[in-house]
Amino acid sequence: MSSSESMNAPEESVKIELPRTSESEQLKKIRHTTSHVMAMAVQKLFPKAQVTIGPWIENGFYYDFDCPEPFTEKDLKAIKKEMIKIINRKLPVIREEVSREEAQRRIEEINEPYKLEILAGLIEPITLYHLGDEWWDLCAGPHLDNTSELNGRAIELESLAGAYWRGDETKAQLQRIYGTAWETPEQLAAYKHRKEEALRRDHRKLGKELGLFIFADPVGPGLPLWTPKGTIVRSILEDFLKKEQVKRGYQQVVTPHIARVDLFKISGHWPYYKDDMFPLMAEDEEAAESQQGFVLKPMNCPFHIQIYKSELRSYRELPMRLAEFGTVYRYEKSGELGGLTRVRGFTQDDSHLFVTPEQLDQEFLNVVDLTLSVFKSLQLKNFRVRLSFRDPESDKYIGSDEAWEKSQGAIRRAVETLGMNYFEGIGEAAFYGPKLDFIFQDVLDREWQLGTVQVDYNLPERFDLQYVAEDGTRQRPVMIHRAPFGSLERLIGILIEQYAGDFPIWLAPIQVRLLPVSEEFLPFAKEVEARMKALNIRAEVESSERLGKLIRNAEKDKIPVMCVVGAKEVEANSLNIRTRASGELGSISVDEVLGRLQAAISSYGDF
Amino acid sequence: MSSSESMNAPEESVKIELPRTSESEQLKKIRHTTSHVMAMAVQKLFPKAQVTIGPWIENGFYYDFDCPEPFTEKDLKAIKKEMIKIINRKLPVIREEVSREEAQRRIEEINEPYKLEILAGLIEPITLYHLGDEWWDLCAGPHLDNTSELNGRAIELESLAGAYWRGDETKAQLQRIYGTAWETPEQLAAYKHRKEEALRRDHRKLGKELGLFIFADPVGPGLPLWTPKGTIVRSILEDFLKKEQVKRGYQQVVTPHIARVDLFKISGHWPYYKDDMFPLMAEDEEAAESQQGFVLKPMNCPFHIQIYKSELRSYRELPMRLAEFGTVYRYEKSGELGGLTRVRGFTQDDSHLFVTPEQLDQEFLNVVDLTLSVFKSLQLKNFRVRLSFRDPESDKYIGSDEAWEKSQGAIRRAVETLGMNYFEGIGEAAFYGPKLDFIFQDVLDREWQLGTVQVDYNLPERFDLQYVAEDGTRQRPVMIHRAPFGSLERLIGILIEQYAGDFPIWLAPIQVRLLPVSEEFLPFAKEVEARMKALNIRAEVESSERLGKLIRNAEKDKIPVMCVVGAKEVEANSLNIRTRASGELGSISVDEVLGRLQAAISSYGDF
Repeated sequence: MSSSESMNAPEESVKIELPRTSESEQLKKIRHTTSHVMAMAVQKLFPKAQVTIGPWIENGFYYDFDCPEPFTEKDLKAIKKEMIKIINRKLPVIREEVSREEAQRRIEEINEPYKLEILAGLIEPITLYHLGDEWWDLCAGPHLDNTSELNGRAIELESLAGAYWRGDETKAQLQRIYGTAWETPEQLAAYKHRKEEALRRDHRKLGKELGLFIFADPVGPGLPLWTPKGTIVRSILEDFLKKEQVKRGYQQVVTPHIARVDLFKISGHWPYYKDDMFPLMAEDEEAAESQQGFVLKPMNCPFHIQIYKSELRSYRELPMRLAEFGTVYRYEKSGELGGLTRVRGFTQDDSHLFVTPEQLDQEFLNVVDLTLSVFKSLQLKNFRVRLSFRDPESDKYIGSDEAWEKSQGAIRRAVETLGMNYFEGIGEAAFYGPKLDFIFQDVLDREWQLGTVQVDYNLPERFDLQYVAEDGTRQRPVMIHRAPFGSLERLIGILIEQYAGDFPIWLAPIQVRLLPVSEEFLPFAKEVEARMKALNIRAEVESSERLGKLIRNAEKDKIPVMCVVGAKEVEANSLNIRTRASGELGSISVDEVLGRLQAAISSYGDF
Repeated sequence: MSSSESMNAPEESVKIELPRTSESEQLKKIRHTTSHVMAMAVQKLFPKAQVTIGPWIENGFYYDFDCPEPFTEKDLKAIKKEMIKIINRKLPVIREEVSREEAQRRIEEINEPYKLEILAGLIEPITLYHLGDEWWDLCAGPHLDNTSELNGRAIELESLAGAYWRGDETKAQLQRIYGTAWETPEQLAAYKHRKEEALRRDHRKLGKELGLFIFADPVGPGLPLWTPKGTIVRSILEDFLKKEQVKRGYQQVVTPHIARVDLFKISGHWPYYKDDMFPLMAEDEEAAESQQGFVLKPMNCPFHIQIYKSELRSYRELPMRLAEFGTVYRYEKSGELGGLTRVRGFTQDDSHLFVTPEQLDQEFLNVVDLTLSVFKSLQLKNFRVRLSFRDPESDKYIGSDEAWEKSQGAIRRAVETLGMNYFEGIGEAAFYGPKLDFIFQDVLDREWQLGTVQVDYNLPERFDLQYVAEDGTRQRPVMIHRAPFGSLERLIGILIEQYAGDFPIWLAPIQVRLLPVSEEFLPFAKEVEARMKALNIRAEVESSERLGKLIRNAEKDKIPVMCVVGAKEVEANSLNIRTRASGELGSISVDEVLGRLQAAISSYGDF
C-alpha cells in the first residue's frame, strides 16, 4: 500500500484542508491576539468583568471571565463589534518582560486577584503582552505585531458556557466565551461548513434518530445498550470479520469478563494499568485491604494466554490464532466519555497470535494485510499509521530493553517492507509492548485510533509460555495482539459519521422497505417481502399512509432501497425503485431487483 | 404434549429406577442402621477411633471418625467383614429416650467428647439407638428393628475422604468413610452401573478429553474459558436458537455486563438478591459505605427494560420480544461449584417479552412451544415441569398478593391448556414472579433446571412501564422472562453427559475426519476436505500415521464420521465410511457422502 493512497479523502466534498493550531505558528499568533482583543472588548463593555485564563484550542480559543452580569447571545454581537473597532485602531502588540515583583505591583494596581493566582504558577521569564497602552495580560505568546493583522471577517464568537475557576466546582463560577479566528474568511467559511457537517453527521444524534443504541442513567455513563437495529449492525460487522478470520486460520474462543485480581498481577495490569480499571470486587474489608477479589477485565490477553497455557503446545500448532469478540471494561473519567467513541465498556475484535520467533515477521504482515482489507470493505480510507513506541524515560512499561528493541524492530521492519508512510508516537505504546496503530481522521479532522497490531515479548515471559520446538527443546513464543476494528463501539460511531447515517446496503439494519400505494397492493408487497426474507434480505412493508409520507419516512429512516408498489408494478411483477445512493431508478422486475440486491450485499457495494 | 411422553427415558439402557433416600422411609432406615453397624465395626477394629456424625445422603451415608491411624482401602475390606458379622449376629436395634443429664452421664462414661458437643446442639427428646447391648450413638432415627434386616450383599463401603470437625478447617481433622446400602443386591448393582455410567459420561472429564473448555486458577473457580472446539458448540447452539427466534419475531439486543447499583435498587435485586451478586465495585470507602458504585449483572431483565423504556411504546409494537445471549454473574459459594452445571459466570439465552394483558396467555403458550421444540431438536426428553410458586410465608418476594395471584394463575392456565403433567415447587419462584421450570433428569438421576418461563407483573410496576393502548390510554404491559436452554454452560454440560461426548453431527466441533491410508492419497483427501469446507462442513485431514492409529485417534476424539481414503476410493471417487452412530458403512461415492452429510446436519439427525 502506498501512503498517499491511504491519505486520500473518502468524500472530497467533505474533506477541507484547514491548518491546525498545534501545527501552525501563524494560527497560534492569530488566536492569542484575537483572544486578547476579545478580553479587552469585554472589559470595555463590562467594566466589572475580570479576566482569568484564555488559551488557544484546536479550532479557536476561549477566555473565562468573572462577571456579575450574565453574558447573552446579544452581548456576543456587541463584543464582536467592539473587537472590530480595536482591530481597526491598529494597536501595536507589545511584549514586555518583567520581574515577578513588578508583575505583582502592576496586577495590584488594576486589582485583578485571579491574575495574582496565575502569576504564582508562572515560571520566569514573566511576560506581559500589551494592546497599545490601554490593556495588557500575562501571556507567554506568541502574538501578531499589530491588531490590524487580524481579519475581522475571519473571526467569529461562537458560544457561551459556564466554567469554574481552576476547573474546580467548589471555586468561583466563571463565564466562558468560545471564539474562532482564521487566516482568511475562506478558512472561516470552510471551518463553519465542517462544523455543520459534523453536527449533521454526529453519531450521537444520528444514533438516536435511527434508533441504534441508547444510554440510560441507571445503567451509567459510557455503557451503551444496543437496540435491535444497532445489534443488527454489530452482528453483521462481527460476522463479516469472523468469516475473514476463518479463512485466515483464526479460531474463536469465549472467556469470562472477570477474573481474580491475581491474573492481572501476573500480567502486570494491576501494577501498571490499575488506574484504568474498575474498582476491585472485594468480599470484605480484609480482602480490599490485601487487594484480593475479582476485577473486570480491561483486556482479553491474559485469558487467551490461559487457554494457550492449558496444554503443552508443539511448534506444529503454531501460529495459534485465538480470536474473541471480547467485551472489556475500562474506568474512563466520566468527563471524557462521549457517545460511542469514548466508552467504559466496549467489545474488541480481539485476537492473540502465538508464533515462533521465525514466524513473527510474516504473521505481522498477514495481520496488517487483514486490517487493510477490512478497512477497504468499510470504505475507510482516511487514515495514517503510527508507530507507537515506548518513552524510554518513563517507568510505566514492563520488560527488558532487549525485548522492547526486538518488538519495536519487528514493527519497523514491517512498515518498511510494506513501504508504508508512518509517523512515530513516542510514549504511545501499550505497557507491555509497542503498537502499529491505524489513526482515522473524521469529518471534523479529529483523529481516532481504530485498528491496532502489537508485538509482545513481555507477556510470554511473565506467563512463562512455551512450546516444544522441532528439535525437542522448550522455546518461548512471541505474541501478536491485534484488533482491526479496534472496538465495535468506536467503529460504529465513526461509520455512522462517515456515512452520515446512510449505511451501505450490506450494513443497513433495514435494507429494503416496500411501499404499497394502497391497501389493495399490500398482498403483492407482502409476497415480495417474503421472497426477500427467504434470501436473508432485511425487508419490511410499510403501508396505510399516503405515498409522500411513506417516502418521507423511509428517507428519514435512511433505508437504502425503497420499492414502491402500484397497479403497474403488480401487473408487470416489478417494483418501482428509489435508492438513497442513486435516486429514482424506475420500474425493475422483481427478479432483477432480487439479483441486484444480492449482488450489492455480497460485494459490499450499492444497489 | 402429554406428560408420559415427556417422561420417557432417552436411552433405556442407562435409565435405572432407583428409590431416593429423601423419598423412601425404608431406605432411610437401612442407611441409618448400616451406618451404625459400620461405626460399631470401626470402633471394634480401631478402639482409639471416636465417632462424630454419620448422616444418610442421597445415595448412601457417611460417618466421620477421629482416629490416630489413617484408614486404608484394605481397612475398608476388614470393616466390611466385621459389619457382616454384626449383621449376622441379629442384634436388635433399640431406641431409648433419655434426659439431657442422663445422656451426658453416659457419654462421659465412654469418654467421647465429640458426642458432648453434638449433644449440646440437640433439642429434646434426646434419643439413643443401641445395637444390642454393645454399642450406641446419639441419633434421631429412623432405624430398622434388627441388624438382620440388612442384606450384606446390598451394602458397599465406597471411599475414604478427609473432613474437618464441624466443616471448620481450624478444627480437628477427621476421616470420612462413604458407604451405600440398598434394599436388594439388584439395586446395588444398578446403582454401581449408574455410577460407572456417570463417571464415563462426566462432562468435566469428557470436556477435558475432548478439549471443549478449561478452568484456570488465576481466573477463578466457576469461570469456564471456552477453547476453540467448545466455542464451536456454543456458537452452533446460539445460531440454532437465534434462527428459531427470528422466525418467531424476536429481536436481538446487546447490553452491558455492569450497571450502577441504582438500577438494581429499582429492580429489587439489591435488596432481595444481593447475596447472590458479586461484591460492589465502589470507588472509595465512602461509596462503599453508601452502597454506590457499579455491580455485575446477575440477570438481564433490568437492561432490556431500559431499552423498552427508552421510547414511548404503542400497542402496535407489542408483543415486543427482546432477546440476548447475555452473560450474567452470580456469586455462588465456591463449595457449590461443579464443572459447567454450577458456575459463577454463564450465558443465558435470555429474552423478555413485553405484552398486553390480553396477549399474555397466547404468548406464554408460544414460548412453551418454542421451548419444547428446542428440547426435541436436542433429543432432551427426560424432563418434568415444575410450577415454581412463591412461599406465601416468606418475605423474600416483591409485589402485591394480587400480582402474584394473576401471574401464578396465568402459568396454571397454560399447563392446563396444554394438558401437561406438572408438580408444584412452593418457594421456588424468582423474587419478582412465579416460573414454569423444565427440570431435566441426568444419568445419575440428578435433576437440573434447564429452560424456564416466567410471568411478571412486578417489574413493569417498579419501572413504571407503559404503552399507549388503542383507545389512547396509558396501560401497563406484562413481562414474560424466558430462557429455553437456561444457560449455555449448563446445557452443554448436560448435553455432554447425555451424549456421552458423542455429539450429534450438527453439533460436533469436528464433523468429519478424512484418513488417507498413505501419503499418496493425501491430495485426494485434501480435495474432498476443501469441497466439504465449501459446504460449511467442519472437516479435517489427519495423515502420517498407520490406519489403526488414525482410527483410534478419531474414536478417542469422538468424530462422528470418518472417511478412509485408499487406492480403491481414489479410483472410484468414493470414501470408505465409518460412523460413531452406525459403525462401518463401506464405500460410498463422494457426492452421496456430501449429500448425506448435509441432510444429517440440517435435520439434526445422524449420517
